Amino acid sequence: MGEFELIERYFRRPRRAAAPGVALGVGDDCALLAPSPGMQLAVSTDMLVEGRHFLPTVAPERLGHKALAVNLSDLAACGAEPLAFTLALAMPRADEAFLAPFAAGLFALADAHGIELAGGDTTAGPLAICITVLGQVPAGQALLRSGAHVGDDLWVSGTLGDARLALEAFRGRVKLAGGDFEAVRTAMELPQPRVALGRALRGVATSAIDLSDGFVGDLGHVLAASAVGAVVEADALPRSEVMSGQPAAMQRQCTLAGGDDYELLFTAPPMARDAVVAAAARCGLAVSRCGRIEAERGLRVVDAGGRPLQPAWRGFDHFANA
Amino acid sequence: MGEFELIERYFRRPRRAAAPGVALGVGDDCALLAPSPGMQLAVSTDMLVEGRHFLPTVAPERLGHKALAVNLSDLAACGAEPLAFTLALAMPRADEAFLAPFAAGLFALADAHGIELAGGDTTAGPLAICITVLGQVPAGQALLRSGAHVGDDLWVSGTLGDARLALEAFRGRVKLAGGDFEAVRTAMELPQPRVALGRALRGVATSAIDLSDGFVGDLGHVLAASAVGAVVEADALPRSEVMSGQPAAMQRQCTLAGGDDYELLFTAPPMARDAVVAAAARCGLAVSRCGRIEAERGLRVVDAGGRPLQPAWRGFDHFANA
Repeated sequence: MGEFELIERYFRRPRRAAAPGVALGVGDDCALLAPSPGMQLAVSTDMLVEGRHFLPTVAPERLGHKALAVNLSDLAACGAEPLAFTLALAMPRADEAFLAPFAAGLFALADAHGIELAGGDTTAGPLAICITVLGQVPAGQALLRSGAHVGDDLWVSGTLGDARLALEAFRGRVKLAGGDFEAVRTAMELPQPRVALGRALRGVATSAIDLSDGFVGDLGHVLAASAVGAVVEADALPRSEVMSGQPAAMQRQCTLAGGDDYELLFTAPPMARDAVVAAAARCGLAVSRCGRIEAERGLRVVDAGGRPLQPAWRGFDHFANA
Repeated sequence: MGEFELIERYFRRPRRAAAPGVALGVGDDCALLAPSPGMQLAVSTDMLVEGRHFLPTVAPERLGHKALAVNLSDLAACGAEPLAFTLALAMPRADEAFLAPFAAGLFALADAHGIELAGGDTTAGPLAICITVLGQVPAGQALLRSGAHVGDDLWVSGTLGDARLALEAFRGRVKLAGGDFEAVRTAMELPQPRVALGRALRGVATSAIDLSDGFVGDLGHVLAASAVGAVVEADALPRSEVMSGQPAAMQRQCTLAGGDDYELLFTAPPMARDAVVAAAARCGLAVSRCGRIEAERGLRVVDAGGRPLQPAWRGFDHFANA
């Protein structure tokens, strides 16, 4: 199977009425998009490399899902509405047993968000997946990292740390019962981008970021961009049942510095608490208040009694963390 | 050097007035772009993998140039005006000796086109460069592959085949004098995307494509998309002085099936000949008429006497061509 047959077979789909922003899709030199008037275009790119972002054991269908999900998560963090995406795929050979389920997982998530593949590139090479997502947001309404204010509450959606717990289990450092392992493995392999929540938080949250590198590291980006500090109550970070059954040190490691969560971390003034909870409820999601923004720079992590914890946690860094 | 320091040091630049389409650049979850009213957004993605798209011997500065150039070439083929680009970069380690010149070559070309890096991703992994370019074109005016009409002239910009000749020299199949080798090597490593020509051809050309996989293969995409055929005069394909000094068989191989040319192949009605030449002259480029579009499907390659050549040429296919 050649490159063009591969594109034709797995990545070209009939035009759908559900992708109104795409004027011209796969098959020309460029795709053409038509954002709605008054909208800014939101763009984000993520590359996934085998062994760094996913394990060789991941099912191709889940990999297709995850490659798009981590990009949609960036749109979610900006409060943007997804429009379309491009895919560049390097793989050792054109392997139908990989491509068919990969495309199925990719398009299932694309369909769930009403967006279309707008173009891309396939090439031979070590397995790498590069997706660029395009979304739109009313001009001036994007949620940014730089908007956190002193006195704001810190919020996080869903639960944290399960993806990291799954990685620890894959590495043999944690032993989990079969059902528990499947639950956290699903969290790692099938993250759900919080696109609806991001949109619902426009005009409510003051800042937002998606949790990809770990809570402490990602919060650090918000604090730096907003020129503020924060106090976080470690025991207030939301955990799944499986996580709650782990030793306390493992819970803190996974929730504070786990990575691969793809939940939203955001700030909002205390007077917006009801609005935050209502926005999350409309999206069928739980949100947890886990700290507050302070004028004093830096991040202070405390336990339930307010006692400071000495964190050695940091965000995942692709060159520092081997 | 960690991932975030790397981004800060090499890829974050002060906001410039010259990038008016970028409302928010590197440093948040998404970049925000503001296309002009009435414009469609043109998007294209290309991934470059070591050993497939470039040789390990290429200077990092030239690689930075080429990675962006091949993407801008797709915008050129649509007649779009570049707005911004994203970069996802996988590399074995954060190597300053690579990154500094890579970024210099990348940004020199970006500056030449007045565009800015709007976001991206860096990760550890086998060297791979994935760029997505974003441009804008007045709604309905994009040059497409599907617009060629029976009776149209076939045109090509610049000269063809030098990049392939350089590859043959690297492979030891051709021996070139030092100056000749440097000339064709420069064509291979520093392609110039024909962005100005693409824009000048809006409303003049009926279809366009950029030559990346080889003349015959890329022309095949135009013929298929336009549901027409063509006759091409092999000896009318424009060649450099170095190319003209090669044996006839090598000339035909390189010009008809070379790849990596990044010139524009386009069609226009005979009554537009003066307009085509004038548009090219405004861009300081030569254009050559090399054939015509016919109703009979398929591609007929003929010599200067009109005698049919039996071509074994085809476009480059990343999975069929090992």
